[in-house]
Amino acid sequence: MNSQYQACIEACSNCAIVCQTCSTACLREDNVKMMARCIALDMDCADICAMAAAAMARNSEFAKDICKLCAKICRACAEECGKHDHDHCQECAEACRKCAEECERMAA
Amino acid sequence: MNSQYQACIEACSNCAIVCQTCSTACLREDNVKMMARCIALDMDCADICAMAAAAMARNSEFAKDICKLCAKICRACAEECGKHDHDHCQECAEACRKCAEECERMAA
Amino acid sequence: MNSQYQACIEACSNCAIVCQTCSTACLREDNVKMMARCIALDMDCADICAMAAAAMARNSEFAKDICKLCAKICRACAEECGKHDHDHCQECAEACRKCAEECERMAA
Amino acid sequence: MNSQYQACIEACSNCAIVCQTCSTACLREDNVKMMARCIALDMDCADICAMAAAAMARNSEFAKDICKLCAKICRACAEECGKHDHDHCQECAEACRKCAEECERMAA
Repeated sequence: MNSQYQACIEACSNCAIVCQTCSTACLREDNVKMMARCIALDMDCADICAMAAAAMARNSEFAKDICKLCAKICRACAEECGKHDHDHCQECAEACRKCAEECERMAA
Repeated sequence: MNSQYQACIEACSNCAIVCQTCSTACLREDNVKMMARCIALDMDCADICAMAAAAMARNSEFAKDICKLCAKICRACAEECGKHDHDHCQECAEACRKCAEECERMAA
Repeated sequence: MNSQYQACIEACSNCAIVCQTCSTACLREDNVKMMARCIALDMDCADICAMAAAAMARNSEFAKDICKLCAKICRACAEECGKHDHDHCQECAEACRKCAEECERMAA
Repeated sequence: MNSQYQACIEACSNCAIVCQTCSTACLREDNVKMMARCIALDMDCADICAMAAAAMARNSEFAKDICKLCAKICRACAEECGKHDHDHCQECAEACRKCAEECERMAA
């Protein structure tokens, strides 16, 4: 493990999973229509978080660039999820904020 | 989080990262030529592990099928990595075996 | 390009894109609730198709196993999408059937 | 299909495949050691190209940001691959340049 990246890799891996979980839970809500942007952002956020974790694990030359973009997408996903009271949305917002902080530190 | 899958999701997420780390470390070894199959299997294993973790998090209808294939690829990667004395290969073999066991339990 | 796989790689790459397109279009339909399983299968199908295309391009030892699973998921997605009259669902069903056929030939 | 993105989606899908093909072909060269950075960049480039194609197909809010980063990674991969005379490297360099141009146009 590239130990300097470990906290950020873990935050990204976790956020990817939590976003996937949130997207599925949103699809099962009665008010799916209201959750459409949340689902769309969950999909973007899951993708970039998984990619960021993989790039850091490979010690990629572009790890910082990828983490910078990951932080931006996490912030948007946290803001949208944070608007909804569902537990899965609140947990997702929290995971996204944690991941954004780690990625911002990494990219600095 | 789909709690029934939690141990397997964690094993898959971890294995994906450890395989990416091993592929990069193998590329930096002096005897890269000897590590070619290890690198190739690391790439397959990282891909299927990330996909399995995502599918379980989404509570996918195909989670068991994907985990069954994930276990098969993890077994092959563990066997190949296990042949090499490098620490990153031994750690990867261990993560692959752990992930294979969790995936086999999941798919059963 | 591994020319023996070319038709299957193209079918998988195309199907991955068409499934992503369909998932977004479903999220914008008025009757999103009715489209929930379609969206979920689109996500599974997009993931395995992208992975199958990548594995064939890498000439992976597991290309046949991955294509076999890809065909199974494509068949399920084609069946679900085929039930909906939206153009994006009908196009997705068609791309999934085409991809399933190529993957079944590949895995044979 | 989101027709305004079609040329860029196709360039990204193609580049992802060509990078995977190049990474495997590099691993089979006698002088693998010399190809290590090429393989590493192929992996980064394949990942971001696949993600960019998927994000455009989903009409993601972040499609432009992702394409901007994709163009940057494609330029680096094209430069490295362009140094090597192997056919697979020259073909990869060409696919990366084409993809970078389309992504730059998209992100503008």
